[in-house]
Amino acid sequence: MGRWKPGARERLVGAALELFAEDGFEQTTVAGIAQRAGVTERTFFRHFTDKREVLFEGSATLQATVVDAIASAPPDLTPLEVVAGAYEAIGPFFADRLPFARRRAAAIAANTSLQERELLKLATLGAASAAALRERGVPEPAATLAAEIGVTVFSVGFRKWIGGQDDDVTKCIRETFDELDTLTA
Amino acid sequence: MGRWKPGARERLVGAALELFAEDGFEQTTVAGIAQRAGVTERTFFRHFTDKREVLFEGSATLQATVVDAIASAPPDLTPLEVVAGAYEAIGPFFADRLPFARRRAAAIAANTSLQERELLKLATLGAASAAALRERGVPEPAATLAAEIGVTVFSVGFRKWIGGQDDDVTKCIRETFDELDTLTA
Repeated sequence: MGRWKPGARERLVGAALELFAEDGFEQTTVAGIAQRAGVTERTFFRHFTDKREVLFEGSATLQATVVDAIASAPPDLTPLEVVAGAYEAIGPFFADRLPFARRRAAAIAANTSLQERELLKLATLGAASAAALRERGVPEPAATLAAEIGVTVFSVGFRKWIGGQDDDVTKCIRETFDELDTLTA
Repeated sequence: MGRWKPGARERLVGAALELFAEDGFEQTTVAGIAQRAGVTERTFFRHFTDKREVLFEGSATLQATVVDAIASAPPDLTPLEVVAGAYEAIGPFFADRLPFARRRAAAIAANTSLQERELLKLATLGAASAAALRERGVPEPAATLAAEIGVTVFSVGFRKWIGGQDDDVTKCIRETFDELDTLTA
């Protein structure tokens, strides 16, 4: 059966990111991704519903991690402390993902409809975080405001991480929350 | 020539919002909007490039107002004070627009691609605000963070206004900035 190869899923992700960079997202086909990964189209569709999902499949895991961390935070924290702590919980999820995250960001930056989808995912993360804060008894508008500021700080910190300012995503996000403290002092 | 009618542009906007509510954005055609407004399609295209622009034509004016206000703010303000002041400058723009803003928000809420476009417009407003802050000498990441928090607070305050909590959009936004102060105290 030939030499060992990484799993089909990883090869599909790698092939898709290569082709998005070479040919652009619109021009890339599922057939092309499958061919580059050395698998059938049917195998592609066992892992992803379409080519866009290759870029967004992590969103649900990320959101579940943040929402769970908000729900299980100690009761005596302020809403912003709860949110800041929740984004520290995502570190393990991104631990080995910097090369992927960079190539993913490049693909999204090159395509307006992907940018719009990314923004919608972040808005959904904000709404889910606000609901989790309300579950803890945080009233409105504090819940929505804290949740959306959390998404903003996360995004800015995440871009620092992608930009190579530090290899540790948790540290990049924590520093951005510290920056928020300085701004609002 | 018949009785006096409001301007073609206003009638087109009103007709478009009616049809978006009745039939949905996707099903509505420019021909249908023009017919409802009692003008030709050609007249529609003298005012708007497509049906989506009826909803987003104010974005450029809003952004220019915010950016100009950031640029001309007194020099001794903090970045967040500059941004909070800039969103107070948009009051006159929205003064008579509450009925429009409500119908517009309903149309956008009913359509994912319109939500995505709205989020992209807000992201563009954030990026333009950050650039205006950098022009004032605010370093990064403070400029981006203050600009994006400004967009977040504006959005939350704007939704309060749409939701009918107060007729004064400036007051709704100012109260949300006050809420931010409380959250971060």
